[in-house]
Amino acid sequence: MDTTLQDLKIQVCEANMKLKNSGLVKLTWGNVSGLTAENKIMAIKPSGVDYKELTPEKIVLTSLDGAEQYGSEMAPSSDAPTHMELYRAFPSIKGIAHTHSTYATAWAQAGAAIPCYGTTHADAFYGEVPVCDQLRQEQVESDYEVNVGKMIVAYFSNLGLDPEEKPGVLVPGHGPFSWGKDAEAAVENAIILEEVAKMACLTRGLQPCCDLLPDYILNKHFSRKHGPDSYYGQS
Amino acid sequence: MDTTLQDLKIQVCEANMKLKNSGLVKLTWGNVSGLTAENKIMAIKPSGVDYKELTPEKIVLTSLDGAEQYGSEMAPSSDAPTHMELYRAFPSIKGIAHTHSTYATAWAQAGAAIPCYGTTHADAFYGEVPVCDQLRQEQVESDYEVNVGKMIVAYFSNLGLDPEEKPGVLVPGHGPFSWGKDAEAAVENAIILEEVAKMACLTRGLQPCCDLLPDYILNKHFSRKHGPDSYYGQS
Amino acid sequence: MDTTLQDLKIQVCEANMKLKNSGLVKLTWGNVSGLTAENKIMAIKPSGVDYKELTPEKIVLTSLDGAEQYGSEMAPSSDAPTHMELYRAFPSIKGIAHTHSTYATAWAQAGAAIPCYGTTHADAFYGEVPVCDQLRQEQVESDYEVNVGKMIVAYFSNLGLDPEEKPGVLVPGHGPFSWGKDAEAAVENAIILEEVAKMACLTRGLQPCCDLLPDYILNKHFSRKHGPDSYYGQS
Amino acid sequence: MDTTLQDLKIQVCEANMKLKNSGLVKLTWGNVSGLTAENKIMAIKPSGVDYKELTPEKIVLTSLDGAEQYGSEMAPSSDAPTHMELYRAFPSIKGIAHTHSTYATAWAQAGAAIPCYGTTHADAFYGEVPVCDQLRQEQVESDYEVNVGKMIVAYFSNLGLDPEEKPGVLVPGHGPFSWGKDAEAAVENAIILEEVAKMACLTRGLQPCCDLLPDYILNKHFSRKHGPDSYYGQS
Repeated sequence: MDTTLQDLKIQVCEANMKLKNSGLVKLTWGNVSGLTAENKIMAIKPSGVDYKELTPEKIVLTSLDGAEQYGSEMAPSSDAPTHMELYRAFPSIKGIAHTHSTYATAWAQAGAAIPCYGTTHADAFYGEVPVCDQLRQEQVESDYEVNVGKMIVAYFSNLGLDPEEKPGVLVPGHGPFSWGKDAEAAVENAIILEEVAKMACLTRGLQPCCDLLPDYILNKHFSRKHGPDSYYGQS
Repeated sequence: MDTTLQDLKIQVCEANMKLKNSGLVKLTWGNVSGLTAENKIMAIKPSGVDYKELTPEKIVLTSLDGAEQYGSEMAPSSDAPTHMELYRAFPSIKGIAHTHSTYATAWAQAGAAIPCYGTTHADAFYGEVPVCDQLRQEQVESDYEVNVGKMIVAYFSNLGLDPEEKPGVLVPGHGPFSWGKDAEAAVENAIILEEVAKMACLTRGLQPCCDLLPDYILNKHFSRKHGPDSYYGQS
Repeated sequence: MDTTLQDLKIQVCEANMKLKNSGLVKLTWGNVSGLTAENKIMAIKPSGVDYKELTPEKIVLTSLDGAEQYGSEMAPSSDAPTHMELYRAFPSIKGIAHTHSTYATAWAQAGAAIPCYGTTHADAFYGEVPVCDQLRQEQVESDYEVNVGKMIVAYFSNLGLDPEEKPGVLVPGHGPFSWGKDAEAAVENAIILEEVAKMACLTRGLQPCCDLLPDYILNKHFSRKHGPDSYYGQS
Repeated sequence: MDTTLQDLKIQVCEANMKLKNSGLVKLTWGNVSGLTAENKIMAIKPSGVDYKELTPEKIVLTSLDGAEQYGSEMAPSSDAPTHMELYRAFPSIKGIAHTHSTYATAWAQAGAAIPCYGTTHADAFYGEVPVCDQLRQEQVESDYEVNVGKMIVAYFSNLGLDPEEKPGVLVPGHGPFSWGKDAEAAVENAIILEEVAKMACLTRGLQPCCDLLPDYILNKHFSRKHGPDSYYGQS
């Protein structure tokens, strides 16, 4: 096997373990994938495998159209078609995480976008965390997981949202997907999304008509961490 | 001792420890049982024993009518008669778990069924998690634990509920019972029930009049994991 | 030193560590005491000592009027006078725990007794967990900690409450005290009180006008674990 | 390097680790600083560094005007200018902690001061935990972190608040800053602030119109732990 693919499998395995160890995943409810530099091959967790038994060898490699599978012969995560749709539509992302983390899922079940109430949120998401539309019956009954991906892509496209400014989304009645420049960044955004979801839930409990963070603070915090003028961290 | 019974005691001991380690049990508030393949002998946690001191040798074996006890001479869990009623009425289940897990118990105390707000729920429970009726005074004053079991069975029978589609129930003012194809599956359903109870509680806080998950998504998710057309996990 | 006193110091030290390890205590906010069989000498945690540095040798021994101190020369917990008042008034108790555990303290801050909504509660408290009256200014300004104890005792006496049926109380604006047959039992009741407080808080959130547990179930559950007809646990 | 500065770096490193281990910090969202006895040099966490990789050698030393940096060449926390403003205005404090801890941040996002509902709060904060004013656009767009510090200082000055009686503040839409006589005390106040924020949130849920703790109890508890008449802990 190609060294780069071997590295990707190790990286994706570690990102899956980090997701589990962060407390965002109960049982086997979560999956992380990563993409090669050429955007051709996706590495993803196998379906329904206990995290305790996950090794880089079990990580599944597939072409982005799902037609070819390399290395591990295990079935990929049932959500793999959703990941593929996102990778094909958003060329700048190379890692995706999906969880049923408690607070983000509660917002998804409530069918509500997470408002930007503070700088913790603004440091990672430029404005609300969107909730896409509900699939129609025929979109669920055939090619369900493909259609979840297509729905997210259509929602971002119709509203002109930038996946680098919104590194995650809520699927209504389901839960969050998040992404980033690699598998680890996708997991980090899953952690942020869950914490922001919890803070917003508590904020609304304290103040049901809470004002959003002013735009000028949102701009400041997002640009402090992202883009050409960022100055957070070590250069 | 028969090897199969020895295996069952080990399996039931491990399932009790898993329940404890999952954080669903405070002090000694929980018990898991398992049944032999022939549905004749039940293995269950002894009453009021500290989990730190639980060993397979202490697991109690009894006939399903409670008339005979084998091996360990400790008193079985005080809830043993409830387990027996469920095993006799629901022949497809071979494991039962009972907890006072926080959020599931809160729903039970509120006397409310847990509505199906999302796919996390639909992956394990086909529709709401039911709450059965409250026992009457005379049913509590004699044969209480037997009558808890009879009430659950009568509730499922009267409403035509299938214990494979609803692998758990709330006893009002008390807490949840869950079950499955063996002791480990019963514990897994206890974990799912608690997480689903927490998510539904938070969802209702965010959106008091939240819509239920559409039926076509409920059908999709339940059948994706259960029954002849399931495709989640490794075949 | 007398062996019995040495045993008591070890028991009280372990009970304090159990309180800390149960997650009920932040920083140094908690204390547990125990009493000798003759109800003459109290062993209690020293004031403001880090749990990591607590050893049986540091446990303070005092006479029940506080006039004499034996062994360790450290200052006893500032709440020691409260413990002494309770021991003198309630001769059947030989262990007391005080915490600022989160949910019990929230009920105390709200000035509300914890209603009995379920069997988890009924297994340990016969009816609501009471909240005693607020101290008046002069009772706070001199002999504050003595007066906290006197207030609890007066409240139980005026209402004819039995400290064996109500093994704990909330001091309004402050937090819970719990007790039992020894220091370990007091800690166990502190754990139960906190969990019951959390469940009741969530129950009320789901159903603001929730019915209390019917009396006949309260009677059944309390007597199943306490008194001459108890049958829970190993005899 | 000067021994005192070396000790300060060790102390500040340990305080940062304690903040992380207390569960108040997700990812890299937090920082603690400490000051030399002469109030001349500040030691602070470097920006965006993983706690797992933090060592005393990486702690950044700067003069209080930020003009000179000693030892480590890493970029200091982006919040360093806020710390400097606080140290210059409040000469009695020698440690500062900043977090995005969940409940304190929820109150900050709600734009509400945390009312003093109980003795847990009164033991550390003399009355409500204040929320300062929101910065205006021009204060955010240039010298943002300096202006956060100036705003806190102006708020305390305008209202005549004493930083020793109020060892922390909420920045609206952002989160808490806390302080104390050294870095460790600042972290301890961050822990207290978060717990007090959680208790107040739950208290308000149980009783939306909850009375404040009476002044005579507030006075008693604060003075029991602080000032010339304190008697808590070992003298």
